[in-house]
This record gives sequence, structure tokens and C-alpha cells, in this order.
Amino acid sequence: MAFYEKSLGVSAESIEKVPMDHVEVAFLKVGETMLELIQPLNEKSPVFTFIQKRGQGIHHIAFEIEDLQRRIDILQNEGIRMIDDYPRRGAGGHDVAFAHPSSSYGVLMEYVQSEHRGEL
Amino acid sequence: MAFYEKSLGVSAESIEKVPMDHVEVAFLKVGETMLELIQPLNEKSPVFTFIQKRGQGIHHIAFEIEDLQRRIDILQNEGIRMIDDYPRRGAGGHDVAFAHPSSSYGVLMEYVQSEHRGEL
Repeated sequence: MAFYEKSLGVSAESIEKVPMDHVEVAFLKVGETMLELIQPLNEKSPVFTFIQKRGQGIHHIAFEIEDLQRRIDILQNEGIRMIDDYPRRGAGGHDVAFAHPSSSYGVLMEYVQSEHRGEL
Repeated sequence: MAFYEKSLGVSAESIEKVPMDHVEVAFLKVGETMLELIQPLNEKSPVFTFIQKRGQGIHHIAFEIEDLQRRIDILQNEGIRMIDDYPRRGAGGHDVAFAHPSSSYGVLMEYVQSEHRGEL
């Protein structure tokens, strides 16, 4: 967090624990984009495994979606493998679904149900 | 590109070769953010080395900066190690500078000189 504060002059808008994923996250707003800093709370966290395997770094990229369940259906019809077949509760109380990186050239993609209309 | 077109309904705004970095890049606009898809043109490309080592995935994250040289000076004063001490020409003809991932917890950070005022 100190790095992003020094580097970009932004500070955390919110910090919360997401027990289901065994992580603590901080959100920093940069323009229209949120940076999510993620820290595993214990060894059960997939983020703990990620850091063990690959070291610290960029974990995933997330996009706001207007109708998440519909988007999941479209993605699966296109042959894209989803980690989540149905929306599940993520950070900030948003419904989210992840695609499997094997379908997205190694990029872990998260789709987030938008609160407002007019997103993708 | 086909994946992002199917997955997000966005298409490339521009495609160009950046000979200095031995890459070809495509930019896709998603909201206020540009996704940059990068393909190495030959084995001299740092992106070729990245893919050899880590596989395909997220390579870096970039932020628009109002006064890039001033930001580089601030970052170096804060003890952040820069790959580029001075702005150099990147994709789209923008001046850019990269910080060293050892200073940013494994995240490769690019700072891009903004064309307009009012950015970070």
C-alpha cells in the first residue's frame, strides 16, 4: 500500500477481509479503475498458493459486466471454461465469476456484476 | 484478440509494431482503460523471454502521468528502482518509463506521459 501511495499518490478507499477466499483486500481508486491489493490470511488461500508458485505480482484483471449470469452463459457457449458457473459473492459484496486461465491465455479474468447500468 | 472480442465485446482500436521492443501490440479500449495485447516479433524481445520463463499472462500495468520526468525523479527519491531513468518512446508514440519489479513487489509498472492534463 505504501508503494502505491508513494508511486501514484492514491490511498486505500476500503480495506476488508473476504473470509471465503482467505484474503484481506484493499481497494485504491486510480481514475475509473480500482487497484485491488490482496494479501492471503492463511495457507488455505488460493492467493497464498499463487505467491508460493509465482512470487508476488499481478494476480488477475476484473471487468464490470451489466448482466453477469448472461455473460457467463455467453462465455460458456463460446467454449470458454469458467471457474464459476454461477455468480458468487466476492469482495465489496459484489457478485463475481472467474474464467479459467487455460481459456484466456494465462490471464486470470474476473467478471464483476456492475451496480450501475451502461457497463459492458 | 478473438478471446477479448468474444469475452468483452471489444475490438482493437489500433495495431502497431514497436521495433525497439521487438513486439507487435494491439490496443482494445474497455471503459477508460486500454488493454494492450503484446506479441513478441522475435527472440530478442523481453516479452519473448517473459513468456519463455512464466508462460503467457499479464505482463505489466500502466498509468497515465501528467509530468513523467518529474514522476521519475520523485520515484527515485523515494528509493524506487527505475528501469528507465529518463522517458523513452513507447507504443503509440508516447513517452514511457518502467519501474523495476524488485521495487514494486513483482508488479511491472509502466508510467506513460499523458497527452492531456488532469491525470495523476
